Amino acid sequence: YGKNTIKFLRLHREGKKEFVKEVEVCTHLRLNSAQEYLDGNNSLVIPTDTIKNIVLLLAKKKGIPTLEEFAIDICEHFMTSFCQVVYVKTYVQEVPWQRLHENGVPHIHSFICVPDGIRFCEAEQCRNGPLVVFAGIKDLKLMKTTQSGFEGFFRNEHTTLPERNDRILCGELFCKWSYGECRNIDFDCIRNKIRECILEAFAGPPDCGEYSPSYQKTVNSIQMLILSKVPQVQVIETVLNNTFYNVVDMKNLGVTNDKEVLVPVETPYGSCACTLGRK
Amino acid sequence: YGKNTIKFLRLHREGKKEFVKEVEVCTHLRLNSAQEYLDGNNSLVIPTDTIKNIVLLLAKKKGIPTLEEFAIDICEHFMTSFCQVVYVKTYVQEVPWQRLHENGVPHIHSFICVPDGIRFCEAEQCRNGPLVVFAGIKDLKLMKTTQSGFEGFFRNEHTTLPERNDRILCGELFCKWSYGECRNIDFDCIRNKIRECILEAFAGPPDCGEYSPSYQKTVNSIQMLILSKVPQVQVIETVLNNTFYNVVDMKNLGVTNDKEVLVPVETPYGSCACTLGRK
Amino acid sequence: YGKNTIKFLRLHREGKKEFVKEVEVCTHLRLNSAQEYLDGNNSLVIPTDTIKNIVLLLAKKKGIPTLEEFAIDICEHFMTSFCQVVYVKTYVQEVPWQRLHENGVPHIHSFICVPDGIRFCEAEQCRNGPLVVFAGIKDLKLMKTTQSGFEGFFRNEHTTLPERNDRILCGELFCKWSYGECRNIDFDCIRNKIRECILEAFAGPPDCGEYSPSYQKTVNSIQMLILSKVPQVQVIETVLNNTFYNVVDMKNLGVTNDKEVLVPVETPYGSCACTLGRK
Amino acid sequence: YGKNTIKFLRLHREGKKEFVKEVEVCTHLRLNSAQEYLDGNNSLVIPTDTIKNIVLLLAKKKGIPTLEEFAIDICEHFMTSFCQVVYVKTYVQEVPWQRLHENGVPHIHSFICVPDGIRFCEAEQCRNGPLVVFAGIKDLKLMKTTQSGFEGFFRNEHTTLPERNDRILCGELFCKWSYGECRNIDFDCIRNKIRECILEAFAGPPDCGEYSPSYQKTVNSIQMLILSKVPQVQVIETVLNNTFYNVVDMKNLGVTNDKEVLVPVETPYGSCACTLGRK
Repeated sequence: YGKNTIKFLRLHREGKKEFVKEVEVCTHLRLNSAQEYLDGNNSLVIPTDTIKNIVLLLAKKKGIPTLEEFAIDICEHFMTSFCQVVYVKTYVQEVPWQRLHENGVPHIHSFICVPDGIRFCEAEQCRNGPLVVFAGIKDLKLMKTTQSGFEGFFRNEHTTLPERNDRILCGELFCKWSYGECRNIDFDCIRNKIRECILEAFAGPPDCGEYSPSYQKTVNSIQMLILSKVPQVQVIETVLNNTFYNVVDMKNLGVTNDKEVLVPVETPYGSCACTLGRK
Repeated sequence: YGKNTIKFLRLHREGKKEFVKEVEVCTHLRLNSAQEYLDGNNSLVIPTDTIKNIVLLLAKKKGIPTLEEFAIDICEHFMTSFCQVVYVKTYVQEVPWQRLHENGVPHIHSFICVPDGIRFCEAEQCRNGPLVVFAGIKDLKLMKTTQSGFEGFFRNEHTTLPERNDRILCGELFCKWSYGECRNIDFDCIRNKIRECILEAFAGPPDCGEYSPSYQKTVNSIQMLILSKVPQVQVIETVLNNTFYNVVDMKNLGVTNDKEVLVPVETPYGSCACTLGRK
Repeated sequence: YGKNTIKFLRLHREGKKEFVKEVEVCTHLRLNSAQEYLDGNNSLVIPTDTIKNIVLLLAKKKGIPTLEEFAIDICEHFMTSFCQVVYVKTYVQEVPWQRLHENGVPHIHSFICVPDGIRFCEAEQCRNGPLVVFAGIKDLKLMKTTQSGFEGFFRNEHTTLPERNDRILCGELFCKWSYGECRNIDFDCIRNKIRECILEAFAGPPDCGEYSPSYQKTVNSIQMLILSKVPQVQVIETVLNNTFYNVVDMKNLGVTNDKEVLVPVETPYGSCACTLGRK
Repeated sequence: YGKNTIKFLRLHREGKKEFVKEVEVCTHLRLNSAQEYLDGNNSLVIPTDTIKNIVLLLAKKKGIPTLEEFAIDICEHFMTSFCQVVYVKTYVQEVPWQRLHENGVPHIHSFICVPDGIRFCEAEQCRNGPLVVFAGIKDLKLMKTTQSGFEGFFRNEHTTLPERNDRILCGELFCKWSYGECRNIDFDCIRNKIRECILEAFAGPPDCGEYSPSYQKTVNSIQMLILSKVPQVQVIETVLNNTFYNVVDMKNLGVTNDKEVLVPVETPYGSCACTLGRK
């Protein structure tokens, strides 16, 4: 099989107001032939240059109303137009341009890049199989400075970690979910709702937070909240890449450091992942 | 001379509300001795481990009210405590954590990383010289989808670039300014004012924008606006690293592309820089 | 499940001669419990800190004779020592330190980093299942300046790529293979043999090379040569990430460029992958 | 002023044997005008596209016999052809392709990328000033597993580092030197000689090494050896970015770790730099 990545900008205008989407599209095809590998016979091979042309042409003709609709368009095009294709997957990722505001007034054609979580989606289809759509958010960096601990874990002769009930919880979140039926879905609206669920479950109520007994439990809380609030979501995969922080021991320097100065621990670097679906 | 980088977190609490600053500090020392290079005599060398201890201890004792005040504290400590130091420069850069909000309510202890321009500063001093303070913003990515052109440039037999009056203006901005006298300055307030000046001069009025005849002129407009609105700023250095976009030619594909689909040009990659001061 | 990465150095000495291995080890565990996710009950959770201790302790006690033997040791330790573990995978990657030579004489304790292909391996086991060992080479960048083309490919109305019979073939190779039975295998020796096969199949005979009709065929040639020369290998996965180069059109500059000056095409970026096993 | 980066491949053939250089060229111009900044008058501005055309055309016409000769050609072209240019600097960096060998036989057209130190050079000229040429090696990673210490350093109440006489010396070296008179210099030959000096001074004799009392002394030894062996070199700047390694304390795990297992210390990260010239 082959893969192909292309990055481009799609502009459009409504009256004097400009809109922009910058995306990176990766299209992955598998063919029903092996002769290109075995004999160097390229007669069924679709050049990456052709894939690029098609992706750009679809963007021109149909625009990018949402990442998901664009990914679905691409998948359907390849399945319909090339009978040698037995599998297609399209990954679309968005450069996070946001409209500039001056004193609360939106600017008609100026944008700023604000990478506080990258939006992406995936559409995937095997010939004669259903088209499956995933959407997600990645590179979302969150931190809680208190209300997090890790106690009562498994101990043996190799355990040196002390129990802690007031540590920093800090990590980079990856969250990817699948949709069941894709007709009449407002993808952007659902994505925003899910983002709110993530932040709410991570942080807890704004006035007091909520104690996290482990990264695992926090991951689970995020998933449970999404499943309960967003009925269109079928399955969620969540990965939390943790950064650990150590309180610096300042006894030698004659000072008591009461969780005021902490340094990141580069190693070990941990990650906790879980996939949760509906019954 | 020697250099040393350390990254850490500084927390503090007011009532139940938590505050966090994560910074990367790079301290650069030059000594009045050469014997460590020539003879391997280390008796005047200050180990990087000691530098680290001092930076962390100052953070613990004095906190980080602003990046600039912290950098000044570090500079002054090294100049005062080590008579072998003839030059010290401290660079401080902030990880852009922002307080989370839920439905407009600020959270007491949860934060999200929003890297839409990185704040940094520098304090520098030679022995017997004045302490000079710089501040800046870097990695600020901005785009205008219209109201930008490049015409009337120098032409010779090696010129192939067509003139354009409706191109994309897109780039990554670096802006660094120096202060004259540093007493009684509200560094954070000035920094915010300067950020607003940058966005305003880049984008122009929100309802119509302002035509940019070149990257150079846009850089100059940014600098002129800052100098006119912020009297504490003495000198400004601005660098704009440009990303160029080409309108994709779709004639071969039977379609007219009216600046709707564009691809980034990886090479040539250009940059335009200028330093401007008061008379 | 959870993951954990640690990087460290393992030294040993034979007489006055020093040996060094620097590795990055990523251990991935899955437990037979869900209570840590559902209830915040950590009683079966193995902290990443414990995983780190065990990896370092095994390195200390057993050394790292080969990456593969070390990965097997780690897998077996976790399966044997923790009955709550139902799956373990260990990935080991080597920092490519090579002994320095001065005028052909090997230095007893000095090394240089030469990243011309990174060695890695993986050992994987489900409880009650067999231990499977993979090894591989990645980030191996190769180029042929001639004897490569791409012709006779599938054409439709979206095809604009011209046929070429003298292009540059340039890419980054990833190659990963599995072993059947792992007893009494000289892993390092096989790895070197496979590296030679890759280079030979990619480049062809040194005096004339061998024409490559496509990236796909080159990938297949590499795999076929390995399977024919190295009986211990069961299955090979190969990925070739291609960099394309365009001959610069210099007609406007009054010059004919006969494939002398080429620029890399950043987009589209392609990749071709294939997995091949024995019957 | 403005800057511009371009990356390209230059091929040539002698008989059936192919040669390749892949370089990244960054050209930096300063003009004698300010009107493009102040008034948006572009009439003297040289577009980056034109700069790119000139660099590629010079590569086509003159080839790249050495990085230094190519950088000199570019500088001279801009000074001669554009009277509005008052300063030009050209930086050239090489992608480290090496000819493949099979059983010791060099391949006629296949290459492998071996980044064990990146070669670069710089040529710089002010109008009416001399052309100055620098050359250098960067990203050269070296390690000594013994024969290195750090003792007798400055101590005060903030010193916690223990004295060590058997530590790891590991770092990334940057070395840049200037030539006096540039006529009739064999740049590649000198560069190779200097590389040998660096390795020799870093490592010491192959059978026993040489004790390094500090990073500073090692930097100085490298510079002294180059100045003594290579008369064409006028001034050398050397920077050693250090990676520190800590011996892991395994007492809690019931084991004595005799400098066998070490972990890298990510922070503090240190660097030591020195510039040395002839009297």
